Amino acid sequence: MTSKQVESVHEASLEILENVGVLVRNQEARQLYVQHGCEEEIESSVIKFPRAVVEQFRQSIPSSFTFHGRDPSFDRTIPEDGPIFCTGSSAPDIFDLESNEVRRSRSDDIARIAHLVNELPGYDLFAISVTADDAPDGQQSLSRFYPALKNCQKPVYGSAPSIDEVFDILKLCFLIAGREAAFWERPFICLGYCPVISPLTMDVESTEKLIRFTELGVPCYGVMAPTAGLSAPLTLTGSLALTNAEFLAQTTLEQILKPGKPIIYEALPTVVDVRNGAYSPGGIETGILLMGCAQMADFYNIPSGGFAGLTNAKSSDVQSGFETGMSSVAALLAGLDLLRIGGLLDALKIFDFSKVVIDNEIALMLKQAARGIQFSEDNLALDTIAETGPGGTFLNKSHTIERMRTTPFLPDIADRLSWSQWKTGGAITPQAQALNRVREILSVDNPAVFSAEVDQSIREEFVGLVAGDSLPIAASMKPI
Amino acid sequence: MTSKQVESVHEASLEILENVGVLVRNQEARQLYVQHGCEEEIESSVIKFPRAVVEQFRQSIPSSFTFHGRDPSFDRTIPEDGPIFCTGSSAPDIFDLESNEVRRSRSDDIARIAHLVNELPGYDLFAISVTADDAPDGQQSLSRFYPALKNCQKPVYGSAPSIDEVFDILKLCFLIAGREAAFWERPFICLGYCPVISPLTMDVESTEKLIRFTELGVPCYGVMAPTAGLSAPLTLTGSLALTNAEFLAQTTLEQILKPGKPIIYEALPTVVDVRNGAYSPGGIETGILLMGCAQMADFYNIPSGGFAGLTNAKSSDVQSGFETGMSSVAALLAGLDLLRIGGLLDALKIFDFSKVVIDNEIALMLKQAARGIQFSEDNLALDTIAETGPGGTFLNKSHTIERMRTTPFLPDIADRLSWSQWKTGGAITPQAQALNRVREILSVDNPAVFSAEVDQSIREEFVGLVAGDSLPIAASMKPI
Repeated sequence: MTSKQVESVHEASLEILENVGVLVRNQEARQLYVQHGCEEEIESSVIKFPRAVVEQFRQSIPSSFTFHGRDPSFDRTIPEDGPIFCTGSSAPDIFDLESNEVRRSRSDDIARIAHLVNELPGYDLFAISVTADDAPDGQQSLSRFYPALKNCQKPVYGSAPSIDEVFDILKLCFLIAGREAAFWERPFICLGYCPVISPLTMDVESTEKLIRFTELGVPCYGVMAPTAGLSAPLTLTGSLALTNAEFLAQTTLEQILKPGKPIIYEALPTVVDVRNGAYSPGGIETGILLMGCAQMADFYNIPSGGFAGLTNAKSSDVQSGFETGMSSVAALLAGLDLLRIGGLLDALKIFDFSKVVIDNEIALMLKQAARGIQFSEDNLALDTIAETGPGGTFLNKSHTIERMRTTPFLPDIADRLSWSQWKTGGAITPQAQALNRVREILSVDNPAVFSAEVDQSIREEFVGLVAGDSLPIAASMKPI
Repeated sequence: MTSKQVESVHEASLEILENVGVLVRNQEARQLYVQHGCEEEIESSVIKFPRAVVEQFRQSIPSSFTFHGRDPSFDRTIPEDGPIFCTGSSAPDIFDLESNEVRRSRSDDIARIAHLVNELPGYDLFAISVTADDAPDGQQSLSRFYPALKNCQKPVYGSAPSIDEVFDILKLCFLIAGREAAFWERPFICLGYCPVISPLTMDVESTEKLIRFTELGVPCYGVMAPTAGLSAPLTLTGSLALTNAEFLAQTTLEQILKPGKPIIYEALPTVVDVRNGAYSPGGIETGILLMGCAQMADFYNIPSGGFAGLTNAKSSDVQSGFETGMSSVAALLAGLDLLRIGGLLDALKIFDFSKVVIDNEIALMLKQAARGIQFSEDNLALDTIAETGPGGTFLNKSHTIERMRTTPFLPDIADRLSWSQWKTGGAITPQAQALNRVREILSVDNPAVFSAEVDQSIREEFVGLVAGDSLPIAASMKPI
């Protein structure tokens, strides 16, 4: 989009908020909006936003967002440290590592995935990738955050079904940090919520989360997830305008509650498959719409994020490769700062261990693409070109030797052997190579696990808590 | 790159050509260069290019390039009709469709591939994808161009080992066109050559091709193929500067020979895998370097092309998917007009029928990405958003229904079924789905084949010529 078109999307969003408004089912939210200059249609619970109100509150959104890791060396601030990469989150199912069958996911899966993400350099954050079907009653969130935090020193992102569970998560974090103040100095979790149900509806519970999480001061922000053709217009422009209006509605409430609250402009926009209504996050349109979101965020001078590498594929196959690769490159080149890319198959429903390792490689390729052509006089290499001369070789030049480990990205999963070398070496598929890497990482004790004392204090506090340990893979792991 | 950096690369190229020069082994080329203002170092055969000479001759390069198809509806002019897509070319090996084993490729493979490309809407051109191991003596090129032209009405791109073989190709084309003048009005082939061997060397034979093909007036242009770390500096900037210098050297000769000759700025830039010297066109660096080439071509106001979707993968697997998908999106978004993307595995060495169908889908996704967010007041859909209102559905709105077939890209290979639907339907992999499509297309008589009279005249002219027919797949085709 041209900058004029970006402005038109902004203008259209203001018009939508002013004329159509947002159905706000949460009474507290309606009151807050009205107290700060919005108008309520009493019978319908629709809030209308004068443009001045929206324009006023968006001014206080900070231009950067910081994720803290349990280990400060993993702290990441965007856009400065971007692009940064993250796993996909909350898949209910998983390919069992030992049997390769699909089953419900569990807390011990989270422990293993957290261990992997801690070791895989492409990931900057760990969004808790699966749910925990084995969670004891009342410990749904603890059974996800505990194995995640125990096994990963990178920032941990997750959600919580209620404010009560957030208090448990915070208690867990205080024990890990040693004391409450230490956690608040560097809060090493981030919570997400989806406060707007497209089109233009904020319901009771998810808006409650927005309010309570924001009041608490824990790092948190919302995600918009419109589906063009169902909950948004079936044009990319119209869908973007609606998404942007929804973003402005929710963030107005956030800034009313806490002016200066850092957030990320984050979305998971899709287009419906009109043939059968299928949810299609693997479509290239998700990549295109995220390019638009990145531009809108840039217009507002706030960091952007999105689910940029999703796939509808059923295994780590060619579809998984091109769907994850294409949308993520598109979003990256449009300037998206945070890409949620890793590990999920079947439209966010199934986690796959081979995919999380393959997506780590894709993330590293994307980081290489983001560096791009690093222009400098030295990099132009005119002296070396002259020294080498027509018909010479660059292989033995010091200019080349100095850059052997820095210029090219050296893949671990993508095979580059000749056909005969590859055949002789056992014709290992990329998927099998990825699972070899999983086995390798999980066979080593996880250095990220916190001390026995901390663990004891946690287990005393939360009786009956899941074990939360990353287990090595049984020798019987089924080969692909 | 910023526009200043683009200019710096241009300046660096001029400096390389002026100070380092190009080793020109072809005597006729040296004479032509010298007659038009270049300087020859007699002992070394190095030609040095005063910047004024380079700047003068690049002015006559046209800003567009037209490919003609045997059927005029397939004519494509870039950049106007771009981005356009093409198969990869000249792989020596192929996955046999019936046995799925790798073997030498043959003329009947070319016939089948041409048939497929004719039917697959993602492809605008057919670059003859494989060599013909069964070619009779002296009919190497005929055994490639005949099955290609017989089975495909889209523009056909190929190469020829010598000028003699080009005369045979032209004779074939005249018979197809009915008469010589009819062919020259709309020449439906395009020839390629690689006149510069990096670094900075033009050898006898390939430069001979540049000269003779250009004199003939058949559409043709050169491709640069530097490998950073071996034949180019191990920096992306330096490699780009050298590539650009080599482009300017070859195109200066073309424009000396025929001022106003249309060309494409085309490259296949790679970075060596420093661990084992492997040729790595699947690396993301190829995509990044092509972004640079697209920018240089744009600076010169000439169309750009490149091998943007190559892979080192050994089958249509996840590596094939992300390598092909990522570099091609990068190059596309940087403005590359022609992407050679389709069908090849194992670093251009093996053609795969499933891949050519999968890459057709990738090409269609890329065309969707190139359309991007089509901004218009109507597309903003403000009336429809107001009509739908908060909490409504867009599914039943006329605005949606009118766009059901135009807004979303509807994939054929990428599966979007739910897990249970997919399992019930036989758990068909994308690779198997692609091969089903191959079987389907090849089972129908090819409407592109030219008339029996034309065919008879060709077979009378070239005795012993290969059959050139696209054969249906044996029922025994091995499932993936």
